[in-house]
Amino acid sequence: MTLYSFFRSSAAFRVRIALNLKGLPFETVPIDLLAKGDGEQFSGAFRAVNPQMRVPALKLPSSDVLLQSLAIIDYLDEVYPEPPLLPGDPLARAKVRAVTLIIAADIHPLNNIGPLRYLKRTLGHDQSEIDAWSAHWIGAGFEAVERLIDPGPYAFGAAVTLADVCLVPQLANARRISMPLERFPKILAVESACLALPAFAEARPEVQPDAPG
Amino acid sequence: MTLYSFFRSSAAFRVRIALNLKGLPFETVPIDLLAKGDGEQFSGAFRAVNPQMRVPALKLPSSDVLLQSLAIIDYLDEVYPEPPLLPGDPLARAKVRAVTLIIAADIHPLNNIGPLRYLKRTLGHDQSEIDAWSAHWIGAGFEAVERLIDPGPYAFGAAVTLADVCLVPQLANARRISMPLERFPKILAVESACLALPAFAEARPEVQPDAPG
Repeated sequence: MTLYSFFRSSAAFRVRIALNLKGLPFETVPIDLLAKGDGEQFSGAFRAVNPQMRVPALKLPSSDVLLQSLAIIDYLDEVYPEPPLLPGDPLARAKVRAVTLIIAADIHPLNNIGPLRYLKRTLGHDQSEIDAWSAHWIGAGFEAVERLIDPGPYAFGAAVTLADVCLVPQLANARRISMPLERFPKILAVESACLALPAFAEARPEVQPDAPG
Repeated sequence: MTLYSFFRSSAAFRVRIALNLKGLPFETVPIDLLAKGDGEQFSGAFRAVNPQMRVPALKLPSSDVLLQSLAIIDYLDEVYPEPPLLPGDPLARAKVRAVTLIIAADIHPLNNIGPLRYLKRTLGHDQSEIDAWSAHWIGAGFEAVERLIDPGPYAFGAAVTLADVCLVPQLANARRISMPLERFPKILAVESACLALPAFAEARPEVQPDAPG
């Protein structure tokens, strides 16, 4: 498999964790979202891979390309079911998915590279206003997540789930803008437990092949 | 079942469609997101139902409350499998989920009520700037969706899928800001096919009990 990735993309970080948890080897093709101009994701070559011009994208051995991190991870969980990333019971699955979606659909899209560029370039905001925007949405989402998880030591008990796979990369984004996180002790405990696992540690942005030296 | 809903919320619209497709009766409890002040979603009573203070939320007969529209719909599809909202083949499922997530995680969060209020109240933008922001993100997402769907007559063939369930409510949001949609002929064809089905038509904002008369 080939993962089109960017070291700092938290959506690509999720897929790296899932591939590692499943024990699936993959080749990384870095797409530099911060390259001069608008970034390599807008090149014709990458547009042919992913018409949405975003990372991650996962090319399968069949040459089919999967888009959208959560769709990719659901596919991996269906085709490579061990270890499972969701509990078996539908109600328990729904609770894991709710936390996953608070992160992936309510927090992350607002501090993604595209909207932050729009705030800067089109709406003329400075970096402090942009960081305050990011901190606002991360804080609002984390307040809900903090009430909904039940660490033991992972977000929903003794097994890693999709919620952990999304939570750890979102924390990396939060740390990049140096926002205070002490009011989220459960979230921080989950992060520590996860980062002790090689599948998470080896997926971190700073150890990717395209990370700055 | 009890659906905490707001007539205009496109995330609640998705869940109404899914409940209708599954033939599941439900009671609607309207939460007025535009009530004087910040909206009823921030009341203590609703916060006890959903700590994230958003609609939709679905209370089951067991009194368990499900959050996040896509988590709710996945639960419904698992517990009430007929008619299925996803194809059986993992690759086909991943393609449907990708389009679903372009809408639910890349378009919708940016034109949700919270971020639009922040742009207005905190960052001081006027309505034309806010509408341009919404149109920009809907346009960018729809360009990808237009390339990825294959109407026949629904987004992925002869059966309604989760992609249709998300696409039709997003179109309602696009129409509210009167953005031009002619460049998305496949998306418009899917919308027409879906709205001919009672499950979609009866879930429309304008026919909800809390819609203005």
